[in-house]
Amino acid sequence: MITSAYEMEGKIEEKSEIYAANISSIKEAQVRISSLIHKTPILTSEYLNSLSRRKLFFKCECFQKGGAFKFRGACNAIFSLGDDQAAKGIVTHSSGNHAAAVSLAAKLRGIPAYIVIPKNAPKCKVENVRRYGGQVIWSEATMQSRELVATKVLEETGAVLVHPYNDGRIISGQGTISLELLEQIPQIDTIIVPISGGGLISGVALAAKSINPNIWILAAEPKGADDAAKSKAAGRIITLPETNTIADGLRASLSDLTWPVVRDLVDGVITVEDTEIAQAMRMCYEILKVAVEPSGAIGLAAVLSDTFQENPAWKDCTNIAIILSGGNVDLGPLWDSFNK
Amino acid sequence: MITSAYEMEGKIEEKSEIYAANISSIKEAQVRISSLIHKTPILTSEYLNSLSRRKLFFKCECFQKGGAFKFRGACNAIFSLGDDQAAKGIVTHSSGNHAAAVSLAAKLRGIPAYIVIPKNAPKCKVENVRRYGGQVIWSEATMQSRELVATKVLEETGAVLVHPYNDGRIISGQGTISLELLEQIPQIDTIIVPISGGGLISGVALAAKSINPNIWILAAEPKGADDAAKSKAAGRIITLPETNTIADGLRASLSDLTWPVVRDLVDGVITVEDTEIAQAMRMCYEILKVAVEPSGAIGLAAVLSDTFQENPAWKDCTNIAIILSGGNVDLGPLWDSFNK
Repeated sequence: MITSAYEMEGKIEEKSEIYAANISSIKEAQVRISSLIHKTPILTSEYLNSLSRRKLFFKCECFQKGGAFKFRGACNAIFSLGDDQAAKGIVTHSSGNHAAAVSLAAKLRGIPAYIVIPKNAPKCKVENVRRYGGQVIWSEATMQSRELVATKVLEETGAVLVHPYNDGRIISGQGTISLELLEQIPQIDTIIVPISGGGLISGVALAAKSINPNIWILAAEPKGADDAAKSKAAGRIITLPETNTIADGLRASLSDLTWPVVRDLVDGVITVEDTEIAQAMRMCYEILKVAVEPSGAIGLAAVLSDTFQENPAWKDCTNIAIILSGGNVDLGPLWDSFNK
Repeated sequence: MITSAYEMEGKIEEKSEIYAANISSIKEAQVRISSLIHKTPILTSEYLNSLSRRKLFFKCECFQKGGAFKFRGACNAIFSLGDDQAAKGIVTHSSGNHAAAVSLAAKLRGIPAYIVIPKNAPKCKVENVRRYGGQVIWSEATMQSRELVATKVLEETGAVLVHPYNDGRIISGQGTISLELLEQIPQIDTIIVPISGGGLISGVALAAKSINPNIWILAAEPKGADDAAKSKAAGRIITLPETNTIADGLRASLSDLTWPVVRDLVDGVITVEDTEIAQAMRMCYEILKVAVEPSGAIGLAAVLSDTFQENPAWKDCTNIAIILSGGNVDLGPLWDSFNK
């Protein structure tokens, strides 16, 4: 459902029919980053299979270095740079996982990373940035403030901007997940992917559909940040005036490079309530024994949702990969409870 | 250090020089159970490598079916039974993980499981038993009460007792971990294993030392339940009048079948404080993104402890496997915090 009150000045960016990445750039990314990243395992659970009435394959990107898939794209972008370009360092703005990924990749490359972080970012994500040697520069919570501060740092340092998702090198890096996944579980017919700015799902869709055009790509999105669902319905990018969700990694908006891929290659968007995300997160801990963040659990929430289960369009989705995208979450209340 | 106040009537059970399991029984177990169990992945973390100044390989048995390594032994024991023997069902007593494992293995075999559970067992472990169809029968918290109630159920049902660890079939099943591990990471020179009743470490040691006699096997034990350390020091089984640790899975005592293996093949026991266990547990969640229970985190606590780091005997332990033995823990306070 599209609520017109949410519609802002949508920008239609359908000029280029050439996507920002393709199977070649994704395979090149795999060669570039394979010695730097973790090949993440797949977990399965017969209990969750019976709950969902499908065969589920959980691709554990929360075990990726830096705790999220973001390290794939960051590595590809940073190791693509020439030495002169790289020497002045990297600037980025991020709610956290991309920031930690850029910090770690820059550290491996031996160059500085300047990270603009909104003040409402989870503490653990800021700690990750610092652990990996990134220099934290604070901004307000809005995307405008984040971009403004980043531009200022760019001017002062001469560093290279590595955008969290609106970048072909980032999209190509994230796409390596599909290459790994379809090698690990060739019978996959559906991939459910969290959607925010669209970098992850663009890479995953481009690689997967290139290998097997019949694979369904479904986006999972919080109802409180459902710009992708609204954009798909409207046929143009819709941005929201504000977002409201516990999934702090899923508050960004589609961009000019990710929208064409989402428009053309994403077969559906499943929106879920925050309560469904929290319940799925609990199942990840208690059944899979995997510590995911809310954004990471949304794919499981989607496959268990009535929206998915009762939609006849998805009744033939049988072997479903779910990308557990990240695991960086503040668990303070849990540790407090142990110290009581 | 041995505190004589803790010494009870120790039983020296060194009569048999034949252990209850060997590499042949463990390989047979692997053939028997391989289609029933998960082959669990190994995770690594450069951050934890740098903290411990070793290369650590985390064998994630918390991802095993039922949430702990216990399913290996339970499957081997239950699928070893003849049809007539199996038909009357299985009885066991357990603080939880063995109970869930027996329930699940019995369900797969299509036979009843009667589970005697002490009243102080974690709620999540009891829920696991029920989820897998086990029939819960309560006992008091003491081992005496557990055994008494189990004997009564045995008499009433004619079912077969499957002890949590004092059983060659159980030890053989747990030993399959070493076969998998040394295939996955052949360069392992040390394995750190949580110790409680000794079933896990007996199987792991028998298999690993049979493949490579130079592998060091180190036990990790809570200071509040350090019967293994005391037994090794005394050269005979020491049982404790009571235990006091957050590691609810590590409160059992060595038995006549596990003690000879622990006595002869375990190269050292590292005892750690509960605060070290809690800290290691936090690292498992926040760095590895793995939801372990306290007993499961003790191997990491051991490798990071001063006891280990400062002992010259272990300075050449370089490629260390740590068995994350289980992940069944009550996370209620965490979920409560999300609903505030």
